[in-house]
Amino acid sequence: MPELRKDPVTGRWVIIASDRAMRPTDFVREQVIPKGGRFCPFCPGNEQKTPPEVLAFRPHGGGRNEAGWTLRVVPNKFPALRVEGELNRQGEGIYDHMNGVGAHEVIIETPDHLLTFGELSEKQVEDVFWAFRERVLDLKKDRRLIYILIFKNHGEAAGASLEHTHSQLIALPVVPKRVREELDGAKRYFDFKERCIFCDIVRQELDTGPRVVLETEHYVVVSPYAPRFPFETWVVPKRHYSHFEDIETSSIHNLGWVMRATIRKIDKVLERPPYNLMIHSAPIQEGAMTHYHWHIEIIPKLTKVAGFEWGTGFYINPTPPETAAKFLRDAGLV
Amino acid sequence: MPELRKDPVTGRWVIIASDRAMRPTDFVREQVIPKGGRFCPFCPGNEQKTPPEVLAFRPHGGGRNEAGWTLRVVPNKFPALRVEGELNRQGEGIYDHMNGVGAHEVIIETPDHLLTFGELSEKQVEDVFWAFRERVLDLKKDRRLIYILIFKNHGEAAGASLEHTHSQLIALPVVPKRVREELDGAKRYFDFKERCIFCDIVRQELDTGPRVVLETEHYVVVSPYAPRFPFETWVVPKRHYSHFEDIETSSIHNLGWVMRATIRKIDKVLERPPYNLMIHSAPIQEGAMTHYHWHIEIIPKLTKVAGFEWGTGFYINPTPPETAAKFLRDAGLV
Repeated sequence: MPELRKDPVTGRWVIIASDRAMRPTDFVREQVIPKGGRFCPFCPGNEQKTPPEVLAFRPHGGGRNEAGWTLRVVPNKFPALRVEGELNRQGEGIYDHMNGVGAHEVIIETPDHLLTFGELSEKQVEDVFWAFRERVLDLKKDRRLIYILIFKNHGEAAGASLEHTHSQLIALPVVPKRVREELDGAKRYFDFKERCIFCDIVRQELDTGPRVVLETEHYVVVSPYAPRFPFETWVVPKRHYSHFEDIETSSIHNLGWVMRATIRKIDKVLERPPYNLMIHSAPIQEGAMTHYHWHIEIIPKLTKVAGFEWGTGFYINPTPPETAAKFLRDAGLV
Repeated sequence: MPELRKDPVTGRWVIIASDRAMRPTDFVREQVIPKGGRFCPFCPGNEQKTPPEVLAFRPHGGGRNEAGWTLRVVPNKFPALRVEGELNRQGEGIYDHMNGVGAHEVIIETPDHLLTFGELSEKQVEDVFWAFRERVLDLKKDRRLIYILIFKNHGEAAGASLEHTHSQLIALPVVPKRVREELDGAKRYFDFKERCIFCDIVRQELDTGPRVVLETEHYVVVSPYAPRFPFETWVVPKRHYSHFEDIETSSIHNLGWVMRATIRKIDKVLERPPYNLMIHSAPIQEGAMTHYHWHIEIIPKLTKVAGFEWGTGFYINPTPPETAAKFLRDAGLV
């Protein structure tokens, strides 16, 4: 019997189609293995082919926009939004529009073209999160920007246009609808229970166990109760903070290990699948919230989103999260 | 300068990235051309390979579940939901679930394996909508079912698992979140203006013109003001009805011509792209609504949905709807 499950935060229902339960090898997927061999603007020596850097880590020295970096952040050469200008909100009959003011940056995670995110060292992965934090703290000073999404598209099928491993950051002048829904859902739960829903999820998952992938001092990695996609995986900090950028040094250090282990498990079980990774965090101009809790969502690209999903916002997931978590747990730490 | 536009119904913002404005030929897409040559359960003679039919048109006679039909509706052999049983709503700590009760049917639009939807005759297309209507009116009698989505996945990249042209229908025991958002948005507008937002869209689009693809006695076909996807196209009836199944005979007759012309324009301009088509209609157990207006949405599959879209619900659309509408308008009636 298929089961309908409700996401406790957003209220979205999903269909867990356990009748057609799919195992990792049942999915048709494109293996992500960087090939190299073509010109790459993210490789060392090509620093002039990107807009000037806004941040770089150079532990052994070296000049700005020259080789020698271990991580580099640059504005996107083809930005979805522009940092210059005013919003200029306007009507057009019944419609509303404004200028596309915002920021769009690329975090080049390593100088090595052939490594994937899961193949970076613990220290390199940790550095990626330090870079995210530093960029958010800087962009936050611009009061026009009220929400920042940090995300990673891994593999062409997941939307990556360059294969050299990188993440992206888009700063927006509005709080997106999807984020507002999550904030509102968490607020409703808090108003009712006077507890954070994510803190409750952490507690219940650790208590019951079948959806836990791994646990460390600072984090729990779980297959969520009502996942939209097979092998969807959440990394949730145990300690309550609404904003990612408020993360503590010991927690960011632990995150390097946790993210590396999680991605390596996904790479092993699903044979290096394409995936998207997103940091869900509170709007940057708002103060600390007792009801919201930052976390990371990872969605391997294994199924196609089709008419039913577009028309309803319902998702049909052929792999129960308990099955997915068991595969990931059993994969060891590779 | 990129522009942010707001969908007037749901309040979702999209980024119209006019800087990187893409023309039809810029998209990498998979041409959908049925090949045939393999066993197909939807072809005449294979009626025993599907569950028994729930509806069929046999203008020249013939027995049930035998060849001779021009259109045939059967339950999905691998249904996402099952029609038997009770919902049995239950909690599981902080989580909620219920049994996957519902219906999942397939509308086989023609006996001819090699025709696509756009290649059917006007009469055949009209018959498809008659079949949709008849199935909704029948399923509506089951009071457990409160929402029906009718949709079509055209081409493998858009989620079709069989190439023989067909549509699907899924009847659900809950109103999906995405539908609820559209209903609520339309309600808010009505409460404020005492007018239907879709009636206002029809009026403003016909007044201004640049987003109109075609107009007939009963319908307007437009590129919506804030489309999520390039060449997203809406077919909106001029006359206000909240429920598709209340459609009048003259309107369904006109719809055969309108849908055929619209799909043929899309096939011509985008060279037979994969696409999804969805009928947006009011929940079947609720009475006629002054604030909601049924319509059809068509989304060609030209771009990839990636981390930014998943994380925010924002979409980046590289083709302004005014450009898309011009291409479709200029394509003629082929």
